[in-house]
Amino acid sequence: MSYNTFGHLFRVTTWGESHGPALGCVVDGCPPGLRFKLEDIQVWLDKRKPGQSRFVTQRREDDLVKVLSGVMLDEDGETMISTGTPISMLIENTDQRSKDYGEIARRYRPGHADYTYDVKYGIRDYRGGGRSSARETAARVAAGGIARLVVPGVTVRGALVQIGKHKINRANWDWAQVDQNPFFAPDPEIVPVWEEYLDGIRKAGSSIGAVVEVVAEGVPAGLGAPIYGKLDQDIASLLMSINAVKGVEIGEGFASAELTGEENADAMRMGNDGNRIFLSNHAGGILGGISTGEPIVARFAIKPTSSILTERQSIDADGNNVDVRTKGRHDPCVGIRAVPIGEAMVACAVADHYLRDRGQTGRLK
Amino acid sequence: MSYNTFGHLFRVTTWGESHGPALGCVVDGCPPGLRFKLEDIQVWLDKRKPGQSRFVTQRREDDLVKVLSGVMLDEDGETMISTGTPISMLIENTDQRSKDYGEIARRYRPGHADYTYDVKYGIRDYRGGGRSSARETAARVAAGGIARLVVPGVTVRGALVQIGKHKINRANWDWAQVDQNPFFAPDPEIVPVWEEYLDGIRKAGSSIGAVVEVVAEGVPAGLGAPIYGKLDQDIASLLMSINAVKGVEIGEGFASAELTGEENADAMRMGNDGNRIFLSNHAGGILGGISTGEPIVARFAIKPTSSILTERQSIDADGNNVDVRTKGRHDPCVGIRAVPIGEAMVACAVADHYLRDRGQTGRLK
Amino acid sequence: MSYNTFGHLFRVTTWGESHGPALGCVVDGCPPGLRFKLEDIQVWLDKRKPGQSRFVTQRREDDLVKVLSGVMLDEDGETMISTGTPISMLIENTDQRSKDYGEIARRYRPGHADYTYDVKYGIRDYRGGGRSSARETAARVAAGGIARLVVPGVTVRGALVQIGKHKINRANWDWAQVDQNPFFAPDPEIVPVWEEYLDGIRKAGSSIGAVVEVVAEGVPAGLGAPIYGKLDQDIASLLMSINAVKGVEIGEGFASAELTGEENADAMRMGNDGNRIFLSNHAGGILGGISTGEPIVARFAIKPTSSILTERQSIDADGNNVDVRTKGRHDPCVGIRAVPIGEAMVACAVADHYLRDRGQTGRLK
Amino acid sequence: MSYNTFGHLFRVTTWGESHGPALGCVVDGCPPGLRFKLEDIQVWLDKRKPGQSRFVTQRREDDLVKVLSGVMLDEDGETMISTGTPISMLIENTDQRSKDYGEIARRYRPGHADYTYDVKYGIRDYRGGGRSSARETAARVAAGGIARLVVPGVTVRGALVQIGKHKINRANWDWAQVDQNPFFAPDPEIVPVWEEYLDGIRKAGSSIGAVVEVVAEGVPAGLGAPIYGKLDQDIASLLMSINAVKGVEIGEGFASAELTGEENADAMRMGNDGNRIFLSNHAGGILGGISTGEPIVARFAIKPTSSILTERQSIDADGNNVDVRTKGRHDPCVGIRAVPIGEAMVACAVADHYLRDRGQTGRLK
Repeated sequence: MSYNTFGHLFRVTTWGESHGPALGCVVDGCPPGLRFKLEDIQVWLDKRKPGQSRFVTQRREDDLVKVLSGVMLDEDGETMISTGTPISMLIENTDQRSKDYGEIARRYRPGHADYTYDVKYGIRDYRGGGRSSARETAARVAAGGIARLVVPGVTVRGALVQIGKHKINRANWDWAQVDQNPFFAPDPEIVPVWEEYLDGIRKAGSSIGAVVEVVAEGVPAGLGAPIYGKLDQDIASLLMSINAVKGVEIGEGFASAELTGEENADAMRMGNDGNRIFLSNHAGGILGGISTGEPIVARFAIKPTSSILTERQSIDADGNNVDVRTKGRHDPCVGIRAVPIGEAMVACAVADHYLRDRGQTGRLK
Repeated sequence: MSYNTFGHLFRVTTWGESHGPALGCVVDGCPPGLRFKLEDIQVWLDKRKPGQSRFVTQRREDDLVKVLSGVMLDEDGETMISTGTPISMLIENTDQRSKDYGEIARRYRPGHADYTYDVKYGIRDYRGGGRSSARETAARVAAGGIARLVVPGVTVRGALVQIGKHKINRANWDWAQVDQNPFFAPDPEIVPVWEEYLDGIRKAGSSIGAVVEVVAEGVPAGLGAPIYGKLDQDIASLLMSINAVKGVEIGEGFASAELTGEENADAMRMGNDGNRIFLSNHAGGILGGISTGEPIVARFAIKPTSSILTERQSIDADGNNVDVRTKGRHDPCVGIRAVPIGEAMVACAVADHYLRDRGQTGRLK
Repeated sequence: MSYNTFGHLFRVTTWGESHGPALGCVVDGCPPGLRFKLEDIQVWLDKRKPGQSRFVTQRREDDLVKVLSGVMLDEDGETMISTGTPISMLIENTDQRSKDYGEIARRYRPGHADYTYDVKYGIRDYRGGGRSSARETAARVAAGGIARLVVPGVTVRGALVQIGKHKINRANWDWAQVDQNPFFAPDPEIVPVWEEYLDGIRKAGSSIGAVVEVVAEGVPAGLGAPIYGKLDQDIASLLMSINAVKGVEIGEGFASAELTGEENADAMRMGNDGNRIFLSNHAGGILGGISTGEPIVARFAIKPTSSILTERQSIDADGNNVDVRTKGRHDPCVGIRAVPIGEAMVACAVADHYLRDRGQTGRLK
Repeated sequence: MSYNTFGHLFRVTTWGESHGPALGCVVDGCPPGLRFKLEDIQVWLDKRKPGQSRFVTQRREDDLVKVLSGVMLDEDGETMISTGTPISMLIENTDQRSKDYGEIARRYRPGHADYTYDVKYGIRDYRGGGRSSARETAARVAAGGIARLVVPGVTVRGALVQIGKHKINRANWDWAQVDQNPFFAPDPEIVPVWEEYLDGIRKAGSSIGAVVEVVAEGVPAGLGAPIYGKLDQDIASLLMSINAVKGVEIGEGFASAELTGEENADAMRMGNDGNRIFLSNHAGGILGGISTGEPIVARFAIKPTSSILTERQSIDADGNNVDVRTKGRHDPCVGIRAVPIGEAMVACAVADHYLRDRGQTGRLK
């Protein structure tokens, strides 16, 4: 809803800065009786964590998550069972490389939130970006790990579909490929193209934008609510809340501007098994803000990080013109690590609407 | 936040169906002491109302707004002064053409919310789309009229920038043109192109998508909040809540995926007058979720209405295959009338964040 | 939650002033499929409406409620069926006796909200108390009429249990008596006592406080949530939001301060029918913020209205000492008409928590 | 608002169980630029912590608070400066005495939340009361420590005014006495009475209820909002959310039922210094839900803890009749330690309404 909390019945509050002792989240409203192991959450953090290839930041963080509340251990001493009370999770910051921040502390990096934080608050934790650091997203991913357990049978998967001008060939889409390359690319043919392209970007100390696609399958029909409780509205809000995201689409998205009503509307038929069948999914699984039962398809665009080695014109907090060059361990394409983050956001939105529809305990007889 | 209310300190609740006696909204949190006349609100409803050209629905509604609470009349008997209490506004439905809805009542129009409402609620007001009708947006536009008054010096304007594949030439952009043509087009050269193209669509009983751009100028720097209270997040949420919207962008939006860090980050310099100057505005006026002081630029894509004359495959509520053809008074391009609606949504988001930053009464000494 | 809206899934927004054209409410989150007639709502407004005895204000208002949205008519043309969309209800103000408010407009009546509204907003609708008038509670009572339908089998009833120092004899409690006297008294023996006492108060142009008790039977066990979503917390909040209320109790309330643990804790036993039985109900139906299945018992204290005929020391908006005497049609004991209002608040709190537990549509299979 | 979060602009989320590794809170919306040391928070936790006299539980917890985020250290390496981002605080559980909970795990202690948690969630952390343990209030007290810093010049103090039937003599009220005895009693003459009385209760393995009074001085006039955003409403809600609280009063509270309008309404006069003066404070500092500038006075009743040594009739989770006797380290009068908790709740409510009135950053020019 506001500030550092999102969700209505499945509510997530995140806290922490890049260079404080830790960061974390509180997941409130998780239904009781969910069973999981720590590794069921850790697996998503591992997917997001830095330093896994030369195409992402070389910061080293293990990002080991601890669960501090909201669960009881089963007799195996390992399986956690949610109790319906808030689940607090904590991730320590271990690689806060000490350095002299004096320069950055007073200078506004172009394209960063440095300037706007200072305007708003008059004070800013400049160490590693402080609260505006993408490290905050580790907490989202942990929360998403819980969210994935809420709706029985749901699968939320993401993939990178575009880096710079280089788009995947959708005809090649193969989910099994996504974990086989450092880009979460579903199209094996794009991998060498992106490798070569990003090596150039990286060596130039530059950065580039990207587009991520997230698909949620198994979402039951009927989630979402008119008019300001639309499922796509909440997905858009959460994806837009991710650092560096500048655009969000559902289904055909901006391409729908070029379609006619005949092309765009998804026809229906009764299936042989008595199920209702949509013959296409231009809607991306949502009509009138409510899920249709078809896969939910969302895409978002991530701008290139502004942490680049080229000197850029800027000002400092004292009102002097300065030239700023950002040294450090940055991602040439932040879009890559945005894949598990986008998945987490969609999983949280779906979990929230599921509970709004079914109730917080899901125990209605 | 949820359901039929949005906003945090500037809160708008809308109600009403297409074919009920009336629709309206309650604007809660409006600061005291704002002065306006009824015509200051009516002007925006007039901009949105149907029947103004052959390119929009021929439904005839005067859409006259009444203010039922939250104001006192000044001595001139005409100027209203807000008191800080909720402003209730009501618009009567006058053109509820009677007809036999029996057929539509049981059949799901492909691409409509018919099916999802029935799945969710088990009951649906099928008359004119009920709550999912775009008539609900009249209430948003009225609320937006109040919102425009909240932040001193803000101007929120919108324009249609694309119909089907036909985009405006941005080099021709002239705000003065927007009210000179039936499309809210800022480029006079596109007008005859769109006229001819839409005449074809209209005569074929078809429909087509569009893209709207909204620009808010005069928004002070510092509005918005990390991490889930970002200004762009709330704009995305509200634009996505408009009927038929499938995509939202801020600043460069999806185009930022193709930009390098050097191209995308907006450089800064000190101006001669001591003001901070951004040398470009790729960010669309928002960095880290907080306004920069530059114009806020948002775009959204509207899908073509699924109310078309061509017969389409569908099913009915009893599980039979049927073919559906939507007769009635529909918009060949719903994107046109979405312009004032998009403006209203951006105005409301800005007003809400202004009050979050400055307080509900704005009376801090 | 804030301002003019309460509730989480069953959300009520009220609007309107004492002397505007109308007042009303929007009930959002009402489940679909509830069936009711207009008289099912009107009956509660009739119970609250003024002018029914010499012990309440002589203002004449029919308080006829209109339902403007959120329902479809059944084939009988009379029964309304909720559709799950917001229910807007409107009540016209018909008896806005014109008079010169010039004096009151600038003077602060001691004990009224006059001063605090002016301090906060710098402007105040002085006509009949404006937004702080008890007329606002008509909208609550209408909303409560819907709330009563949400939870199957729930009955919410209230009674006046104290006027001044005169308390009922609880041994005489008989719900059937409540509608047989002008005080909603459950004890017939107190009626002549209160009549004589209040006649004295009324003739002296004075006023007196009172205590109301509300009992909700049939509330299922398990509603409410730790720690800040407690059912008793929301009941306390809503009862305290009623004009002139200064205290709220659940179960034994303040009397529990004088009880030992042995006296206060409600013992349990298994019943012959296999049901769990509480052998007493000191808890007032709520333990740890969650309903036990026993009747929920809440009481609230209403201060005497400060609208009295005796001159009182005060100041005016210009900072002058003045003496204020409130003429007009006021209630010698506002506690009487608070009975149906208290019922409405408890009904709304229970409905909200029911939906939080069971989901907004209640359609879980 | 719901669940485990309260507040609107000053938002507090608490988490943690009695016997987990830790508990804590996230304070969101704290304005930037507040300066404090860890001891400024710790002092309140010390006031609440167990084991300080024979009249409270003998559990030994140091309750040392850690601040994990939301602040930067000043150059002295000790003073923290809030940055406007969420402040996460953590308190470790150190005295989780291991024991066999097998019996309690299945048995419902009469008067506890055991039964209602099981009914609601079907699972319950029985160790030390789990989430329903009063240990949760340590997190509230930490949050209250921050809240006290938000409103310049505010002082929030509490005192115990009644144990069992033994009330203080208000004529003896002396704030300086409160910290001079183990009861937070403002009346030195009551201390020996309570000592003797509570020794009897304690030795009998019994428990007794109490009443706490909290006074907030220096609250500026104008905080709060009509109709459902009343300051007293939020205070009532938060006090009622404290474990074992069954009643809440503002100002005269339930005593106002016995007052006439003449007796109850607080007269006003202009002071010699041009200030507005209230000649009395029956209202407890709040009129129409908005602060008057007078001290805010709230009282709440705490029931006796149901953890007593006497055997009581109950049932178990399998539906058997059982007799339950609660061994362990419990408070004979939980009301004593409720004093700093009540202070924290009032401080949080005031801080929240201050920010709602003045804005989240308080930087309005």
